This record gives sequence, structure tokens and C-alpha cells, in this order.
Amino acid sequence: MNDMSNKWIGARTIRPDGADKVTGRAQYSADFAMPGMIWGKVLRSPHAHAVIKSIDTSKAEALPGVKAVVTAKDFVPFPVDKPVALGIQDMRWMARNILAHEKALFHGHPIAAVAAISEEVAAEACKLIAVDYEVLPHAIEIEDAIKPDAPILHDFLKHEGKPSNIAGTMVLKTGDVEKGFAEADVVVEHTFTSRPVHQGYIEPHACTVSYAADGRVTIWSSSQGQFMVRAMTSLLTGIPQSNIRAIPAEIGGGFGGKTIIYLEPVAVLLSKKSGRPVKMVMTRDEVMRATGPAPGSLMTVKIGAKKDGTLVAAKGEFYLQAGGLPGSPLRGPVGCSFAAYAIPNILSTGYDVVSNRSKVAAYRAPGAPHGAFATESVLDEIAHKLGLDPLEMRIKNSVKPGDKAIYGPVFGDVTFVETVDAIRKHPHYTAPLDRNPRPGVKRGRGVASGFWYNAGGESSVQVNITEDGNVVVTTGHPDVGGSRASIANVVAELLGIDHSRVSVIIGDTQTIGFSNLTGGSRVTFASAMVATASVEKVVGQLKDRAAKIWNIDAEAIKWEDGMALPAGDNAGKFPPLSLKELAAKANEMGGPIGTQVQLNTTGADPGFATHCVDVEVDVDLGIVRVLRYTAAQDVGRALHPSYVEGQIQGGVVQGIGWALSEEYLYDKNGRVDNAGFLDYRMPVCSDVPMIEALVIEIPNSKHPQGVRGVGEAPIVPPLAAIANAVNDALGVRFFDLPMSPPRVTARLDEAG
Amino acid sequence: MNDMSNKWIGARTIRPDGADKVTGRAQYSADFAMPGMIWGKVLRSPHAHAVIKSIDTSKAEALPGVKAVVTAKDFVPFPVDKPVALGIQDMRWMARNILAHEKALFHGHPIAAVAAISEEVAAEACKLIAVDYEVLPHAIEIEDAIKPDAPILHDFLKHEGKPSNIAGTMVLKTGDVEKGFAEADVVVEHTFTSRPVHQGYIEPHACTVSYAADGRVTIWSSSQGQFMVRAMTSLLTGIPQSNIRAIPAEIGGGFGGKTIIYLEPVAVLLSKKSGRPVKMVMTRDEVMRATGPAPGSLMTVKIGAKKDGTLVAAKGEFYLQAGGLPGSPLRGPVGCSFAAYAIPNILSTGYDVVSNRSKVAAYRAPGAPHGAFATESVLDEIAHKLGLDPLEMRIKNSVKPGDKAIYGPVFGDVTFVETVDAIRKHPHYTAPLDRNPRPGVKRGRGVASGFWYNAGGESSVQVNITEDGNVVVTTGHPDVGGSRASIANVVAELLGIDHSRVSVIIGDTQTIGFSNLTGGSRVTFASAMVATASVEKVVGQLKDRAAKIWNIDAEAIKWEDGMALPAGDNAGKFPPLSLKELAAKANEMGGPIGTQVQLNTTGADPGFATHCVDVEVDVDLGIVRVLRYTAAQDVGRALHPSYVEGQIQGGVVQGIGWALSEEYLYDKNGRVDNAGFLDYRMPVCSDVPMIEALVIEIPNSKHPQGVRGVGEAPIVPPLAAIANAVNDALGVRFFDLPMSPPRVTARLDEAG
Repeated sequence: MNDMSNKWIGARTIRPDGADKVTGRAQYSADFAMPGMIWGKVLRSPHAHAVIKSIDTSKAEALPGVKAVVTAKDFVPFPVDKPVALGIQDMRWMARNILAHEKALFHGHPIAAVAAISEEVAAEACKLIAVDYEVLPHAIEIEDAIKPDAPILHDFLKHEGKPSNIAGTMVLKTGDVEKGFAEADVVVEHTFTSRPVHQGYIEPHACTVSYAADGRVTIWSSSQGQFMVRAMTSLLTGIPQSNIRAIPAEIGGGFGGKTIIYLEPVAVLLSKKSGRPVKMVMTRDEVMRATGPAPGSLMTVKIGAKKDGTLVAAKGEFYLQAGGLPGSPLRGPVGCSFAAYAIPNILSTGYDVVSNRSKVAAYRAPGAPHGAFATESVLDEIAHKLGLDPLEMRIKNSVKPGDKAIYGPVFGDVTFVETVDAIRKHPHYTAPLDRNPRPGVKRGRGVASGFWYNAGGESSVQVNITEDGNVVVTTGHPDVGGSRASIANVVAELLGIDHSRVSVIIGDTQTIGFSNLTGGSRVTFASAMVATASVEKVVGQLKDRAAKIWNIDAEAIKWEDGMALPAGDNAGKFPPLSLKELAAKANEMGGPIGTQVQLNTTGADPGFATHCVDVEVDVDLGIVRVLRYTAAQDVGRALHPSYVEGQIQGGVVQGIGWALSEEYLYDKNGRVDNAGFLDYRMPVCSDVPMIEALVIEIPNSKHPQGVRGVGEAPIVPPLAAIANAVNDALGVRFFDLPMSPPRVTARLDEAG
Repeated sequence: MNDMSNKWIGARTIRPDGADKVTGRAQYSADFAMPGMIWGKVLRSPHAHAVIKSIDTSKAEALPGVKAVVTAKDFVPFPVDKPVALGIQDMRWMARNILAHEKALFHGHPIAAVAAISEEVAAEACKLIAVDYEVLPHAIEIEDAIKPDAPILHDFLKHEGKPSNIAGTMVLKTGDVEKGFAEADVVVEHTFTSRPVHQGYIEPHACTVSYAADGRVTIWSSSQGQFMVRAMTSLLTGIPQSNIRAIPAEIGGGFGGKTIIYLEPVAVLLSKKSGRPVKMVMTRDEVMRATGPAPGSLMTVKIGAKKDGTLVAAKGEFYLQAGGLPGSPLRGPVGCSFAAYAIPNILSTGYDVVSNRSKVAAYRAPGAPHGAFATESVLDEIAHKLGLDPLEMRIKNSVKPGDKAIYGPVFGDVTFVETVDAIRKHPHYTAPLDRNPRPGVKRGRGVASGFWYNAGGESSVQVNITEDGNVVVTTGHPDVGGSRASIANVVAELLGIDHSRVSVIIGDTQTIGFSNLTGGSRVTFASAMVATASVEKVVGQLKDRAAKIWNIDAEAIKWEDGMALPAGDNAGKFPPLSLKELAAKANEMGGPIGTQVQLNTTGADPGFATHCVDVEVDVDLGIVRVLRYTAAQDVGRALHPSYVEGQIQGGVVQGIGWALSEEYLYDKNGRVDNAGFLDYRMPVCSDVPMIEALVIEIPNSKHPQGVRGVGEAPIVPPLAAIANAVNDALGVRFFDLPMSPPRVTARLDEAG
């Protein structure tokens, strides 16, 4: 299967969703409507931190045109009275994120929701809901939230025996880190911070929900997992999953931020109460105030090395901001930061810190970019101090197959060195750099690497042969990065037919077997594996049909170029039977040809990436511009290279925003001051050069096509790579992101 | 499986579509809309018969608001220049039914279609299409169409060497019919006619179609088969099936009339030309003028019997009206009329006659009610002549297991006698009848039997277990008579769980394997069989999971009451594992639990029905009223008795309309004069008594639950049963349907 001479695997086929998207025919979640539909609107907390003493909805209910009002009391209760397992999607906490229960925990926290005959009436009714708040002092930043006298968000959360905003910790350890540092010739330790950054998907959260009189629910919404939508809605509303049909709309970006939901359970309750379909669409302001960004961080990393660059000890302390409710992606920095390096002594500790900000959500390689920013900055400094090439030093310290990963398993394939080597040999890395192109402008070059776990997990795929001998494939995963195109390539290849004869559809929760989230860089890996198993079954059926027709044994038949051929002793005895011919005879030969296969896939080895970037700093204005960017990554096998390149480019661009410009601004009352794309500065086209993606293909031996996850690793190195480049340009290291003009000028002033 | 002590099989569970239908939430085909959608409208022929010399669409295209105009030239060409195989759905002819090619063949025949920004603009544009017709003489009735000098509809159709409107014939034969008649003691021969009757579904044909820039098509429409919609649309437009997603809407009645399509391929072409989604909705007038009724008939049946009632010979000549294009359901009367009787000498001949009426379509047991009207009337007269009880005579002559059916196969189970016996022993049949209740009113009682083939065929079913341990089932058949409810009962029974935990969904063409039409009384039979196979696979998966958990052999596990239990030597060793528990462990034990099974099912033995009816005739007004009606039928096994009773009652009511009131009226130009429910007189509630359904359950040994088809047999006997009852009341036999007041009074005048 890993034969590189494939016809469709690796081809840049036309994307199945392309025409729909460029012509506006694609239906996103706000594009659905139903007869009799009404509109839902959320009342949000004006306070960053307040006890909700009472909610009086009577005036809102009395407003003409209002059909239903709900509060958290309408949810299935999930008591929280003790610390809970850390989990970015823990249900007890998510219930409180979707509608505040005891307390409003951030500015914008949903308090109640109204459904009315129009958005305007619903908004008007929200104003009539009387909430009696007891406003409390608030803490926004990690530094403030972990102070001894910080306002405590959840009384029952304890750290070291005392009420605390540290909701939980995670520790990974190997060897004896103090002994390791004692053996080191050079030790570098720094403290870093980064700000929460939003995923910045173009499509705001939206849904249309219909609750029927018999308790059956249909949900149209976009997400990174219709089964997640079904499961979360079921848990919060008490409706069995079999009665909830969650239909995935086309998705306008997610990047992790749509692995959870905000509106659907509320819309279900509003629909149930009103007896009408309910539509809810967030404004951008609501998205920015109340949906999950990636966490902010406060991190101290200390690494010790021998003179020859051998790393001997590493210690990391990673505080991640969780938002108003516990659950930050600690396993990102704690597990990934040192994972690419064979360091004998490691102590990696994470702290989950609640504060009065919106609850964080997954964002591309959750937590890993933070850790890499700290670790890869420190490594850069060590290399400088030791006078070593930073890439050589990474190669020297790479983990090897058979090494035990700090997060548990034993490494199989390790292709870290190949990514470093690709950058080392690339003309970008060796190109001369004009460090002072004009007065007031300095240039520098930086490198950094990144690690991401990748994942397998549950996927279901159906393959059905149409009567005219073409192929329809149904998968259960929303397509955020080209999974339809990739699966079409795989199925066309395996069946030996023209790509245009394969159509890939995304099923809803009631027409395809359970399929886990689109996330964790897992979907192409998992669904290609399950699609392969499905095609194998279908080819088996096709051979059985041919065997019946020829009256020979099915095992004496081979499938080649879209045809059944008699093989072995029977070779040449019968003319081949094409897929079209066998499909036309399907009925008389036993019935329709097709199957559904569902598996919990394994074998998704981790992803490694190494990036190189040139920057230019306008010293007076503090502006950092990215001039050139090259990103090398082992992708195992690029089923559809354009999408793979796109994933790499997209991850880098998001990393550039994180490194240079994106941050939330809060006023003194703890309210977000820049809740919109005008003031929350994401990179636009003119901010970034063409990103060169170096796609390395070392097939993953555990996958039938050799696939390795792609989507997350590319966002891991950019923060550090850019900081290292800025350091190279200015001779000044930046410990705090974003390296925005005010922060750059301030740091330059400070550094003199 | 045939244990009658089941909990859910045979239970009158709440229908899954009930709440949606009574609250108006159910989405029928006209309920879909899309952004940017425009409206399609069809220009129809004002002539019953005319050559289309030219079509000039330029003025229509120039009308502001018009986005596209199509004619038959836009279809993939299907030449017709020689007689074709008879087939009610032959594609070459259907293309000409959907849009006229060379000729307009009936009043209302589609000539061209327009898509515009509103229905009104589209209708206006239709008027601007200039069609140059050469009007030809026309023939409406069979009698006129088969005259030697009749206007010929299709020059290349030949009968006995000459151009003819007889498009084809079908002959079934056994023994020597003339020798048989020679041996008979009594021979009765009569000629019968019946009029075309419309299926009368409440929901007119409608669709919304979107053709994307990349050639991918989505069709929302109601039909008796989304795969038929896909296949016919694919053939006429040339778009591969894999690129057409046909989504079944809820269906507002079909009765055979929605086993073909009229609008979808036209809407696809309009959408392709305009680049916009297109919606088309027929008016009732269009439905009545141009969609398929059941054929009219002209039939001569001759039967000979011995004095003791033994039938020795039968001859039938059945002319069925096909409409303007060939293809009438000859296998109905030719195959079914004598099928229930062991007659040694039979000659049964059918003639397919084209005339200038709308093309016929399938209608519940297509063609069988016609033949039964003739045959069962003649049998009634024979019984009278011989002084025999008509039911005893039927029992005496019933076919037996092992007899060769006149239409080919050897009978397996035969349960005809049981239906006759059920009526014979029923209090209705033995109740005294007041024959002259008041002056001018006479009462009579009649019986008749009926036969229908039933069918198996292709079905696909998915069964998926939700993470919370409930069950979602997807089938590929539109639900016209309770298939969702029946499948839910079967799946709940087989899994041993509460019925409320099973949800049944109808998949679209791209999310479920090929599933043949809902028709032929096949869907409950076939899909219950495939659902059973699916559940068996899923139970196998569940046992495998339990085996892994307990570390014992899967074969040592039984599934009972929704739980895996260790059996045999391991009995009692482990506490049972429920479906919910196993579902919760699905991920760690190998992945999601579910399957798709698709089969071409066989074993659908034929259906037999015997009916008894009391009528009252107002001699002066000619009004025939049905006073009491009892219908006995072997259904094999009633998975959901309410639906089975409903099918029987519905079939009888449609038969009453056919017998007493329904017919098309044509003016002298061959135009339908009563194209609406006000003037085309279908029975309403006040026209019919409560129909008593005698549900006989003799399990079909070839089906896991014992199911036999139900939906069609009930419409076969009513025409004859009512005619026999009228004869019993008046002493005057009616040979022509409907027995409407004008025809009754005329016949009474004629008979004196």
C-alpha cells in the first residue's frame, strides 16, 4: 500500500467542497431555517465575577413575542462540590459554561436565554430579565489569580490544602532532575508568558434546533463533531442520544474551538418550551467574549546541557489559564515540551489556573505551542552559549525508536531528525542574511522545533457501490482540512477507478456509526484506515460476485484497475468484470454491494516539525515582520499534498499571529475591550509571506497508506522560532508574547 | 423467532412519525427551500394528440426574471424506433413522459419547462413559449384505440404486422383451455370494463433541486424510493449516481404513483442552466391531468366448471390502457386473476394499449383489481348457477402447496383457504340481511377473493449503538405504511430492550446502501429481514466485547433481555453486561458498535385476501352505499397490528372508490374535465363504514418474523365483492365500473 507510484494517493485532486464554497452554495450552520422558526438570544453577565442571587424572568416572559425563557435550572443538574478530573471538556463544568449556575465567572458568561419571534424581540426580552448579582472582586491574569489574597472563584477547589484558583496539577517525571542539573556545564532558566489567543474561525457559532412533540430532536449546526454535539446535548438535557439527530453543517473553521458547544443544549430547551424550532447565531462580539481561546501561560523552563550540547536535565513549570471554569490543556506543555529530546532527567509540572476570563477551549495542538515557546527559546540560548548550531544540537539530542516517551509509551518510528535535517539542508537556512538592510531595521533568523502526539480513535466509514458502478463513501467526521478529498483519493486508489467516480459525504449522527471528534490531527489518519478496511470488505464482496459468475473460487480472483480478474490457474480464462459490470449484476448476485466498518484506530505515531524564519524588526516602531518562513514536517504520507501544505501554512500563520499581534485587552472591571476582528489583531494576507511547506513523507508503518497526523504540529514551533529570530536580529530575547509593537519598543527601551 | 409471546413484535407502539405529522413538523417535499431558490413551471400540451413541429423559447427566455428554459432536447437521448419491452417504468418512455419529444400524446403532456424568480413569472413565461403543433385525431378509450381506423400514436409499434396502438402482449398458459371448456358443465363468459382511477395521494409531486457548479446534485423530494429518484435522474441527465444525493422527504401518500418521477430531472436541468436551486410543485390539476392513474381495462373472462363446482378451464383477455406511452401492468390481471385457483386449463392474455391519456403508473397491486373484478364476478355467477356457496366453491378450488403457479414458480405456503374460511365463519357472513329495508332500497351481500404476488428484493439496514447504549437504525425505504414502526418493534424485540430506546431513520441515497422501491408489499418483509441480519451482527459484536471483558469464548455467551450473560459452564460466573454497559466500554474494546447489512431478499410468498360486503342500493337515485365490510387476509405476522389493519382498511376504501365513484371525464377534444378532488369523486369518511380487518397470522416460514406482504392484496377483491353484492341486491350484474348513480340508473333502465 505504501507504493509511491500511486495514481490518486498523493494527487492534487479537485476538492469535493470547492465548488460549493466558492459559489456560496455550501450550507454553514447559520444557513438553515425551518418553518415556524423563532430566534434565541443569550443574556450575558456584565460582571467579571459575581454571585447570582436570583433571576427573575417574569417580565421577559410577559413581553409580546417571547415564546420561552430558560436558565441553568432547566439543565440536568451536574453538582460540582469537589475538585474534578482535569479535562477541557468535563461535562459538569461545560454545563456551567453554557449557562452560569451559581456564579457569573467572566464578562459575557451566559446567564439566561430567550426565544422570541425575532432576534430583536429576544434581545429586548434579555434586557427585561432581572438578575440580582453580588459583584465580587475579580482576577484576570494568572499572576493575579495565584496570589495568596486573590479572589477565589470556586471555594471547594483546594491547592496544598487551601482554597485556591489552582484547580489541578499534572506532573511527568523521569530521572532525577536536580542531579541532572548538577552534572550540567551550562544551565539556562527563564520565565515566559503568553496571552490567550482566539482560534479566530470565520464562522461564529450557530445552530437551528427543532424539538418535536415526541421528544425527538434535530440539530443543524457546525462543529468539529456531530457526535460530540449529540453527546453533550444529551447529557445536559437528559434526552437519549437515539432521539437526537445532529446534522453537521459545513464548518467555517474550528481549529479546536468547535470541539465543544455553547448554544445547542440551550436551543433544545428553548425549542422544547416553545414548541417551535429555534435558531441561535452568535455575534462576533459574543464569540470573542465568551468562546474558548487558547489559554494564556506563565512558564518557567530550566534546561541543563553538557559542553558538547548533550542535554542532561530539564525542568518545566507550566501555569495555564483555564478561564472561569477548570480545565486547561496541561498535557500540551507538560507532555510535549521535552518529548522530542532524549533527556535523562525531566520534571515537568502543570498547573490549571482559574481566573475571570472566558473558559478556554482546544486550539490546535492544545498547550503545545506554549511549552515549545519556552523550551525552544531556552534551547536556542543554550546553543548560542555553547557556540553550537541550534539544529545540530537538536539532532544530537533527538529521541530514538524504543526510547520511552515522558508521557508514557515507547516511541516507534521517530522522524524528528529528518525534519531538522531538512531545514539544515534547505537553502533558506544557508542563505546569507542582510542583517541591517536599512537604517532602523534589523534582520534575524531563528529556528525551532515542535512535537505533537497525534491520535487515532474511533471512526466509522461506509462504502456503497451505486447501481451504475460508482462509489459513495460516508464518513462521520466534519471536514476541516480536506478529509473528504483525502478519503476520495484513497478509495479511488484502492478500487482502481477514476477519482471522479468517488463521492464522499459526511453523515449525520443517525446515519453513520460513531465517529469521534475532528481534532488531535486524527481524522485523516483514522478515517483513511477505516476506509481502507471498508474498501477491502467491498472488494471481497466484488470478488465473491465474480466468483459466482465464473463459478470459480473467490480466492482465485484478484482485483486490479477497477476490475475482477481470474488469477492463478484461471488467469485469462474469463474476460475481466469491471466495477460497473459487477454493480449492474449486484441484484441477481446477492444484493447491493456495500458495508460499514467502525474501528477504534491505533498507531498514530507522533508528529515532528522544524521551522526556520527570517524576521525584520523596525526598531523605532517596534514592528516585527516575517520575511521568509520554511516549515518542515514529517507527514507520513500526503494523501492530498495541497491540503497538507495548507495545514502547514495555516498553522504557521496562526503561530505568527500568536507570536506577534494577538491578545485580549481587558478594562479595569474585567471586561474585554477588543472583542472584534478590528481590534483583536489577527494576521491578514499582507502580514505574511508565502510559507514554504517542506512535506517530508516517511510512511507510518502502522497505517495502510503511511499517514501521520498533520494539522497540529505546524502551530507548535512558530512562537519560539520567531522569538529566536527576533533575538537573532536584536540581540534581545523576548519572554512575553505577543511581540507587538508596544511590547517590542518597551522591551528595547528596557534593554537599552 | 416466531414465538407469539413477543413483547414488541405485534405491539401497537407509538408511531415514530406520529408527533411530527400531527404537529405539522414533518417535512414533505414542498416544505424545503434554499437560499437563492427559483421556481420551475411546466408548459403542458393543450392537445390530446399533436406533432410538435417546433418549439420557440426565445420570448420566454427574454422575459425579465426568467433564468432558464428547457425542452426534451436537454435530456440524454433515448431513441424509440422499435417496440420495447413492456415495463411500466421503461426509461426510454419515461423520458418522453417527463418531457414530450416528438409528439404531445395527451392533454397535459409536459412540453417545456421554465425556471424564474417566482411561480408567477415562470407561468407567464410558459405562455410565451411558441409551440408549433400539428394537431392529430385522438383516441381516449381502449375500444376506440384498438379500432382498425384508430389514430396511431406510435408508427413503429406493430401488432400482427400492422401499425397498432397495441404496444405489446403477455400470455400465460397451462393445459388446453378449449379441451377444458369442452369438459365443463357450466361455462360463463362476460366482458367487463373499468375506468382509470387515480391513486389520489394528498401530497402533489414536488421537489427542490440544487445543481452545484461541480456537477453535484442534491434533490429533496418525496417518492416511494430515493434510489429510484437518483437512478432515473441520473439516466435522463447523464449525471453519475455518485454525484446525485436524493434525500427522501416525508411522503404524503403514494400508493404506487410515486414509484416514478415527473419533475426531478427537469428541475436538475433548470438548476444546471440557471445556476440556482429550483423548486417545482405540481398543482392538483397537474397531478390529475398528467400523473399516472391505474389503467382502464376492457376484459373478457370465461370460466368453465363441473357441476360440483370444480373449475376446469379459464380464459382471460385483458386489455389495459397504458396512456400515451406504452407500459401497463399486464402482469397484474394476466398473472393474478386465476392464480389462487387450481384450474388445469388456463389461457390468460394481456394487451398493452396506448391511447391519448396520461401515462399510467403503478397503483396498489397494479392490474390485479381489474382482473379480480372480472374473474371473481364470473365465479360468483357460476356459484349462483350451480347453487353453491361461493366461498365453499373457492375453498374447493384453492391452489395447494406444490402446485405450479400460472406465472411460473411452485407455491410454497398457500393460505388462501384460511382467508375464505375466516369470512365463512365470521358473523358478518352468517348475519341475516334485511333485503328490502324501505321502499326503493334494496340490500345485498357479496364476497370475492384476491391474490397478490408480494415481493422481496434489495434492502439495506444500518444498526448503530449510541454511546449511551441506545439504538439508531437507518433504512433506505420511504415509509408509506409504518415500516419505521415495524422495524423499531423488531429491533427492540431482538435486542431485548425497551422500544423507546430504538430510533428508526430513513437514510438518503448517499448514507445508506441501495434499497429498492417502497412498493410491491415488500418493504416490511425485506427490511425486517435485513434488520434481523443486522441485529444478529451487532449482537455478535456485543458478545465479542463481553467475551473480551470476561476473557471467555464469545460462543459461551448468550444475549438475553438486552444483556450479555455467560452461559454453559460459565453460567453465573460473571454479572451480566447490559447494552448500556457494553456501549460505554465500546471504545476501549475495539471501537463503535454497528453495522450495515444489505441483501436481495427472497421468500415473500404471495398474499391472499377474501372480503365480504353488504351494500344498499337506492334504486331511484342509483346510489350504492356500503353498509358493512369485512376483509380477511393472511399477513404472516403483524409486526405492528394497527398499521396492518390500516393497510387493509385503506386498500378497501380505495377499492370502494374504484367500484362506485371514481372516473375521469373527457371532453370531445380529449381534455380532462374533472381534474380536481371536487369533481373527481373519491370516497370520504361519510361514504364508508368502519372496515373490519380480520388479520390472520400464519407465519411465513421463510421470514425470520414470519412476515408476508400486506399492502396490496386488500385492494384486489373490493371491486368484485361490491359488484357481487349489488348483483345480490338487484339481481342485475354490473360489467362496467364505476357503479356510479348515472351508470346504475342506466343499467337498471336497460335491465328493466
